[in-house]
Order: sequence, then C-alpha cells, then structure tokens
Amino acid sequence: MNASSRAPAVETLRWRDGRLELIDQRLLPSRFEYLSCSGAAEVAVAIRAMAVRGAPAIGCAAAFGIALEAQREKHRAPAQFSDAMDTAFKTLAESRPTAVNLFWALDRMRAVLAQGRDPKAVAEKLVEAALALFHADLETNRAIGRAGAALVPDGARVLTHCNTGALATAGHGTALGVVRSARDAGKRISVIASETRPYLQGARLTAWELTQEGIPVTLITDSAAGHLMSRGAVDMVVVGADRIAANGDVANKIGTYTLAVLAERHRIPFYVAAPLSSIDTSVADGASIPIEERGAAEVTGYAGVRWAPEGVAVANPAFDITPAALVSALFTEKGVVERPDAARIRALFDR
Amino acid sequence: MNASSRAPAVETLRWRDGRLELIDQRLLPSRFEYLSCSGAAEVAVAIRAMAVRGAPAIGCAAAFGIALEAQREKHRAPAQFSDAMDTAFKTLAESRPTAVNLFWALDRMRAVLAQGRDPKAVAEKLVEAALALFHADLETNRAIGRAGAALVPDGARVLTHCNTGALATAGHGTALGVVRSARDAGKRISVIASETRPYLQGARLTAWELTQEGIPVTLITDSAAGHLMSRGAVDMVVVGADRIAANGDVANKIGTYTLAVLAERHRIPFYVAAPLSSIDTSVADGASIPIEERGAAEVTGYAGVRWAPEGVAVANPAFDITPAALVSALFTEKGVVERPDAARIRALFDR
Repeated sequence: MNASSRAPAVETLRWRDGRLELIDQRLLPSRFEYLSCSGAAEVAVAIRAMAVRGAPAIGCAAAFGIALEAQREKHRAPAQFSDAMDTAFKTLAESRPTAVNLFWALDRMRAVLAQGRDPKAVAEKLVEAALALFHADLETNRAIGRAGAALVPDGARVLTHCNTGALATAGHGTALGVVRSARDAGKRISVIASETRPYLQGARLTAWELTQEGIPVTLITDSAAGHLMSRGAVDMVVVGADRIAANGDVANKIGTYTLAVLAERHRIPFYVAAPLSSIDTSVADGASIPIEERGAAEVTGYAGVRWAPEGVAVANPAFDITPAALVSALFTEKGVVERPDAARIRALFDR
Repeated sequence: MNASSRAPAVETLRWRDGRLELIDQRLLPSRFEYLSCSGAAEVAVAIRAMAVRGAPAIGCAAAFGIALEAQREKHRAPAQFSDAMDTAFKTLAESRPTAVNLFWALDRMRAVLAQGRDPKAVAEKLVEAALALFHADLETNRAIGRAGAALVPDGARVLTHCNTGALATAGHGTALGVVRSARDAGKRISVIASETRPYLQGARLTAWELTQEGIPVTLITDSAAGHLMSRGAVDMVVVGADRIAANGDVANKIGTYTLAVLAERHRIPFYVAAPLSSIDTSVADGASIPIEERGAAEVTGYAGVRWAPEGVAVANPAFDITPAALVSALFTEKGVVERPDAARIRALFDR
C-alpha cells in the first residue's frame, strides 16, 4: 500500500466545516476527545494548556487559528479586520513563547495577510495557506518516513523515545513516521516505547497512537533500554530532534543521549528523523544549544500524586545533547545523511 | 566523629521492651510511622506487604519475628513450644520466597533453637541471636562504608540508584553507607539520587532518608544521569548489589547497567558497595543470573493513577547485569577490590 493513499488513523488536527478540531492530548490515553476551536483565542488556549503539543503540530494549529479568526472577521471593514488580525497574531505568538515552529508558521500567515486588502479575499487565502502548511508538514513527514524506512529491515524491533508521531505533527510523524512508512511498505515492525519520564509522552502518547493503528508496541521504563539491548532485543533506535546544530549534534528529549551511548556500545544503529526545518545552521554545535530546565513538580510526582519528600532539591533538564559522532544517520525529507557532520549537513541543503 | 559513636538518624528496625518496631516504608515519604509487631505472623505480614524491604532488613526482621514468637510461647510445654516455633518459621519463610537473606537468617535462628530444650532458656538465646544478627549487619555496613569512604574525596558529588541505605538494612546502608561514612569522616558530600522507576525507591526512600540526616540530595529522573555526567556534574557513581557472580558481574536494580556504561564513557569511577554475603560464588557470571520479570502495573501507572493505554504490552525486568569490566572497585566489609575479577574475588574470601 502506498503511504500517501492510507487514511491516517490518528488525526491530530482536522479542518471541518470551517472549524479546527484537535485531539485533546491532555486526556490521552484515558479519554479520546476532540476539542473544537472557532477563533484564534481558543486555539491559543489549547496550545498554552498543551491540549496540542509537538512543535510541528503547534505550528499548524497556530496557522489554523489565524485562518479561523480571518473567517470570523471577514465581514468587517478593512481597518477593523486588520486590528482583529493583529490581536490574533499577538495572542497566538504569546501562547508558547519558546516554540520555533509557532513563529515560523505565524510569519508565513502574516506574509499572506500582507498580500491583500479585501477581508473576504484575504480570509480565503489564509484558509488556503493554513491548509497548505498542514499538507506540507504531512508530506515532509511522509518523505522522511520513506527515506528512513529503506533502512528498516523486515521484522525490525525499533526502540523509540518520547512522542514523535502523528500526535506531534500534522500527521504520520517523524521517528514514528519511519515506523509507519516501513509498515506501509509491507514490513513487519514492532516498537519498544520508552515511557519518557518525567512527562511520560512515551507511555501516554506513543503507546496510545501505535495501539490505535495496530502496530505492536511494548512499553518499558527508560532504565530498561540498556538491559533489552544487552539481551539482543533491539535492532535499531529511531528518535526525533528538537534542534540539530550545524555539525550534526542533536538536542532532543532528556534520555536521548543515554540511548545513543547504549546503542553505540551494542553496535545498534542510532537514527534521528527530523525535517530540515529542525536544523539550525546558526548554531555551530550542541554545546551552544541552551538546555531548558523545567519545574520540580514534574519529577516529584504525577497527576496530583506526590512521591518525593517535601523540600527535596530537583534537577529537571528537559533536553540533552547527542554528539553527531553517535548518530548513525539522519533521516530528512531530502533523504538520508549517513554519519552526519558539518560538511554533509551543508551539502544536504544543496540537494 | 567516629561512625560507630553516631546514633543513627534513621532506625528502620528497633527492639523496644520486647517488641519489634519497624518504619512502615509503604507510607514514606508522606507519613513517618512505626509499625509494632509482637509475633511472627505480624512480622510476616509486614514483610509480605513491603512495610519493610531491602534484603538485609528483611533478614533482620525475620530473625526478630522468631525471637518474638519464642518470647510469647516460652511458658508452654516443650512439645507445644516446638510446634509453635515450627509454625513461626514456616510463616516467615513464606513471606518473601525469593529473598535469600530471609532464609539465611531463619537458618541461623533454627540452629540456635536446636541447641536447647527449655523454652525459657531458648527464647532468651533467640532474642540474643536476633540482636546479634542485627548488630552484625550494622557493623558489616559500617565496615563497607569505611572501606569505600577512603576513596571518596572531599566535596564529592555522588550519584546513586535505588535505595541502599539505612532503610534497606539494619542501618547505615551499603552504597549510602559509603556516603554516611565519608560524611562522618568530615567530608562534604552531596548526593544525586535517580528516582529509580518503576518503584521509585530513589525518589521515595533515598531522598527521604538523606533529607532526614541533612545530607544534601538532588533528585533526578533516571534519564537525566547521562546529561549530568556530560556536564561534569557527577564525580562518582556508587550503587549496591542484589547478587554478585564469581567473576564480579553485578546484578542490581534495573538501570544500574546504564549508569555503568555512561560512567565508563565519561571516565567517572563506578563503585559497587556490598557485603560478602551478596557474592554468590556458585554462579560463574552474570549471564547465569535469572532476571525477575515483574508485573505490568508498576510501569503503566503509580498509586492508582494510570497513564498508559489499556492493553499495552509491557516489559518490566526488575534487575540488570553490569559486567565486572565496568566496575572500578567493589567495596566490602573486608576492604576494597579494585577492578574485580574471578581471581581477586576468590582472594577476598581468604583475606
């Protein structure tokens, strides 16, 4: 079956009858519900509250937020329309101040807005632009998936970390997109999902999304990955990336570096699946990427249950840096970069 | 200050007015309460329910359980006393069938029982034997602590895993005993405690017990250890052992192996603190040690909160194997074994 012809089983975002519907990821996996948004403010609330998460998914949601607002305000006079749109851009930009894809998507939408004067015509263009952005992300992920799937043998047991799936993107996913593409190419694939403390994206989201599609998945604690590798139970590791430096160093969810070190010891391929938009050529190497330190409450308990003693000090780095030397290959929409380094990454942009 | 003269801040087990009192570890860290036991059946319930855990602590509790039962039954005729004691041994032996120290302690108590006929005299001997066993464990831990502390520099930041402290033993602890001994020797020590998913012994017990004694402790997720090592924030790793093979391979809490691999990469010493009773010379190497697979519920949630989707497959190995080649040194009550191997471990028993 061709990847593009398969209807996605998990539709994180969908545009229906002029409204944006998004899976409320705060409720997963215990409840599966769509949240319906009819304006920019509602989308901003959904982003801030993490009903939608994952950088590409946030970017798409913000673009739809602008489209929604334009539709609603299109009967106003041009000046009033313009004011309403300014407010919408501001509200969305403030919803997740560190999300790079959010600003990138808003910049794209602002360029479309600047091209017209008639509110009705501009609103139509903005809806088209949001849908185009959504479909472009989906196609990028499918291209990443095809590139990576070529290196996934039949029967592969793939270890992944965090959630890099349909739930984090317009659909298909990056690292999980590779799994989906390999499955779509007729390969038997099974996934080992590390739970990904502290926020448990692996246990909550990856396990749920793979179960939905009938892809076999086994959940483990993050600590069990080394044991499974030592017993020969892992054929490859595929993860996503939050940001890739010019030399190929990868910033990704805390715990990624540990998996790369373990994979090297056990001679297991360690792959990173990410779009070119994740490569930040303005950053020379991983040491220059700041690591976000998050709050203690994520570590001392979960969902109202506290298990650590009051007053204990906590270190909660959200990301770590995997040196390029530990990356067997990078999967991008422009193909595979084996043993990534500065020269090979530069060459990627010229392909 | 001399280690032996310091009154322990955490008294896991205490013998008071002919009763056994033990910290109910199920309630930690939110509540600190002693459970009082007056017979073998009550002690068996406490062991089964994990109110007391940690192999050495379980062994001591079982010995006290026998002593309690003997005290209570000592006014009976010899035949009835003997029957009551048989029942007590059976009840305690069934409380945690995989705990090696439990059987070892019960065997010691049975030998004492066999030496006398008069219930009153035997009961007195059994109380003495239980107290001797308790104090011997405490002294063993203090000797391990002294041996290890010599290698801990002033200002050391020590990463540890699981709980190997006073709560797991008669007192002082094994890996945490090294920390206590270094502190008692006047060194400034701080601890990084990995939370130790799935059962969270690091977050719940190690963090609590160190906080009680004013030893600085920082709690992290298991996944964050590699990042901290890469940033130069860890000076050494000290862990305990559930079982050590004749060649020095170490079976310990899941996640230990990962810490050893990371420590080797960063040239950080990786130490194992354990009594000689943990060395099983009947097992040639780690590959021969069976790894207990525990239930899925530990991984899919915690304390009534479920975060993984229903029906997801789970792998939950409770232990992993760290090859001897990754162990910088073994700390025992007979001193330090650098770069342990079969010959050096054999020699240890002749010291």
